[in-house]
Amino acid sequence: MTDARPEVIRKAQAARAAAAEMAACSTAVKDRVLHAMADALIERRQYILDANSADVRAAREAGLAQPLVDRLLLSEKRIAAMAEGLREVAALPDPVGEVIAGGRRPNGLLILKVRVPLGVVGMIYESRPNVTVDAAGLCVKAGNVVILRGGSEALQSNAALVRVIGEAAHGAGAPAHAMQLIETPDRAAAQELMRLNQYVDVLIPRGGAGLIRAVVDHATVPAIETGVGNCHVYVDESADLEMAQAIVVNAKCQRPGVCNAAETLLVHRAVAEDFLRRVGPRLVEHGVELRGCPVTRGILPDAAAATETDWATEYLDLILAVRVVESLEQALDHIAAHGTKHSEAIITRDYARAERFCAAVDAAAVYVNASTRFTDGGEFGLGAEIGISTQKLHARGPMGLRELTTYKYVIHGAGQIRS
Amino acid sequence: MTDARPEVIRKAQAARAAAAEMAACSTAVKDRVLHAMADALIERRQYILDANSADVRAAREAGLAQPLVDRLLLSEKRIAAMAEGLREVAALPDPVGEVIAGGRRPNGLLILKVRVPLGVVGMIYESRPNVTVDAAGLCVKAGNVVILRGGSEALQSNAALVRVIGEAAHGAGAPAHAMQLIETPDRAAAQELMRLNQYVDVLIPRGGAGLIRAVVDHATVPAIETGVGNCHVYVDESADLEMAQAIVVNAKCQRPGVCNAAETLLVHRAVAEDFLRRVGPRLVEHGVELRGCPVTRGILPDAAAATETDWATEYLDLILAVRVVESLEQALDHIAAHGTKHSEAIITRDYARAERFCAAVDAAAVYVNASTRFTDGGEFGLGAEIGISTQKLHARGPMGLRELTTYKYVIHGAGQIRS
Repeated sequence: MTDARPEVIRKAQAARAAAAEMAACSTAVKDRVLHAMADALIERRQYILDANSADVRAAREAGLAQPLVDRLLLSEKRIAAMAEGLREVAALPDPVGEVIAGGRRPNGLLILKVRVPLGVVGMIYESRPNVTVDAAGLCVKAGNVVILRGGSEALQSNAALVRVIGEAAHGAGAPAHAMQLIETPDRAAAQELMRLNQYVDVLIPRGGAGLIRAVVDHATVPAIETGVGNCHVYVDESADLEMAQAIVVNAKCQRPGVCNAAETLLVHRAVAEDFLRRVGPRLVEHGVELRGCPVTRGILPDAAAATETDWATEYLDLILAVRVVESLEQALDHIAAHGTKHSEAIITRDYARAERFCAAVDAAAVYVNASTRFTDGGEFGLGAEIGISTQKLHARGPMGLRELTTYKYVIHGAGQIRS
Repeated sequence: MTDARPEVIRKAQAARAAAAEMAACSTAVKDRVLHAMADALIERRQYILDANSADVRAAREAGLAQPLVDRLLLSEKRIAAMAEGLREVAALPDPVGEVIAGGRRPNGLLILKVRVPLGVVGMIYESRPNVTVDAAGLCVKAGNVVILRGGSEALQSNAALVRVIGEAAHGAGAPAHAMQLIETPDRAAAQELMRLNQYVDVLIPRGGAGLIRAVVDHATVPAIETGVGNCHVYVDESADLEMAQAIVVNAKCQRPGVCNAAETLLVHRAVAEDFLRRVGPRLVEHGVELRGCPVTRGILPDAAAATETDWATEYLDLILAVRVVESLEQALDHIAAHGTKHSEAIITRDYARAERFCAAVDAAAVYVNASTRFTDGGEFGLGAEIGISTQKLHARGPMGLRELTTYKYVIHGAGQIRS
């Protein structure tokens, strides 16, 4: 094991030192920086693709599973999409400087609550190299310095990306250390970063449940948990069953590998036979493996038997757990016991049940008669997102530029003292 | 050492189970609960005072310092003040249910961002028993369940208080476990509470630097750091020196034991001799011990010599570190190196320097020409406060009822699926 401390501490100190200059960049400079980063990605794409080839070759030699190799793989098209993403961030409104609230107090003090950058953001993430560029771009626009820690299998790609966009950013007016990559491959490097409270303001882990858990367990820097989604669709006895079918198929199959895909279907007993006989074959046609409770298996004999583990699993795959419940309340209890506070949906025509579901479910996003797949910064109108928070502090659900800021109080006085 | 786990886990589970009922309480019920808590404090004051006498007796026997005994001591007047505090919280607007933002998306989805309670709040705090009542009251109004962990020297007092207000709250419509006190005295009990992520949503530590550090180091539950304030007043060369004197004396002396009191005075060299010759004797008259840099001691020979430790110390006492600086920029560097991101003030008549100070200082509250002592929920118009955040996630500066909430997205659809 190499000693990760020197690199991590050196880069964290450089980040801290760059934070004030980054925070002071005007909107015009930040937007110019973002376009320069985009231009550089296109111009130097071959350099990036060569680095990526080395990662992909190593991953194949190491026997990495094909879907993971796919996530790692860059192409001209993917690089162009990253560049386009940066230009879209440039086009978003600058969140910094907004006066969120304010007014004059009886003693004459003028108190302004002003939106300011977070400072130094530590991003810890897994394989996809596009996260490197997305995170750097969003941090630039929000006036933050970012320290990036990607997956070791993407190290060459990420190093090339950060070199290209970092040099371009600096050339266009950002500080030299506005974006840095931790390159020491050991887990110790990530753990060191998580505990540098004097240099790092916030950690945003983005990846699977294991990564998130490691950050929660080891970090002393404040962190925002993201992304683990064991999402449910509950089909009420009063549901429009045609609508319910479309939503269940969409929530499960449209993109099964993402956090807002549905993992468990809950069906009210009164409509279970009718609904499952209709939706079951459609799901199977889409390649979905069903794992049902005993009642479900009575209706769909080909479904496998669900275990307790199934109710708790985020499959991220074409697998759906199915449970028949006796009532809305039993569905709510199931969601409270097994949900991850991400996205939950009810399909119903009953007003009171819709209201009850929205009030009772403790999650970032609660849906009536829509697919859980909409929990997304773009779909919510935030423009872009750096992750989806599943905790309750600071930000909940999709986090856009505004969620990458904090505020400070600026108080203008005329000699006031407290009596 | 007793085993803290059974009590802490049992109470945390009970809190989790009560959270949904507490969150669903109407404003009318919550306000009735708060008044019932206040009434009960007055009615059962003798029971509370008897319990407090036992704590005070034990503290004296254990040789606790007199100021700490004073903080522990309850009286009829202090109990009446606690009751009045609860009635003031009842009079504040209910933060829960506010629609913070919302609108219809192009696909017809109506997305509402709705303010909701945090859920289960863990309060870890030190000696003063009034924090027990303040925290319980604020949590009730924000729809949260609270688990209280006070200092062991206040255990009898806190147990009596929680029994009295808890029974009254339940009698008036709150869940039976809306407020609970962890009574196992070991530090292990607090550490257990800090790691119960499945039951506790947020930790709010309130106390000295040691307590805050212990929470930051050991907690896996998201925590809000509060209250450590190494606050500075910088007297610029362009300052109105009369105003500066009044502000420095107020910031240091009006209540030296609190987090928003000034701990270091920075003075521009151009006015150092004039200003320090004026303010030095006034501070000494107020009983302040001065600890100065060499230049300061050249002007005020009676000042002790300040060491590096002094620049970093939150005295919470009638001691003031004094440093003469060459420029505004040197003052900013000093604050960046030693400040705790709490409250910082500049005294100046120069517009550009005021703007520069406000933009450059990274703190919860930045003042121009006013005392740092105003950083307070009441003074900021928040009505009441549960603490002052010195971190950047979720809330910064004074935290009132709104900062004891989070939000969720409620999405109303008509069958929308994602394409």
